[in-house]
Amino acid sequence: MTYTIAINVMPLKDLLDPQGKAVLGGLHNLGLNNVQDVRIGKRITMLVEADNEGAALQAGEEAAKKLLANQVMEQFEVSILQ
Amino acid sequence: MTYTIAINVMPLKDLLDPQGKAVLGGLHNLGLNNVQDVRIGKRITMLVEADNEGAALQAGEEAAKKLLANQVMEQFEVSILQ
Repeated sequence: MTYTIAINVMPLKDLLDPQGKAVLGGLHNLGLNNVQDVRIGKRITMLVEADNEGAALQAGEEAAKKLLANQVMEQFEVSILQ
Repeated sequence: MTYTIAINVMPLKDLLDPQGKAVLGGLHNLGLNNVQDVRIGKRITMLVEADNEGAALQAGEEAAKKLLANQVMEQFEVSILQ
């Protein structure tokens, strides 16, 4: 079966996120003053051919660990879409 | 109240995603051959001070439209976390 999975890769909470800081400044300049603590990461979606949901999630985890996330600076989560 | 919201910004389905193609090649090189159609976007999380969930979502939508997403090439979705 084919599953659509999503992998969210976000900067670790304890690390500074300069890109997020810059966007926060931009949002405040646009008048959106009720926003705080912006963090910017990546979202990757892919189709995975797998026997079941568990195997699809495992493939996503492997992809994240081997290529998509730098675990020194980033955390990731994998989920099935739909 | 303070809400944590997430905004996912992804390339439109009809557009090519060269970054996703490159990552797909990398995953195949690593032996993950059961993966197809990789697409790469952004995920932004932020804290929003708002009266209710609807207002928080609206602030996220405004941020996406004004700054975070280029609607010619990207689609976005806003959700409340937790």
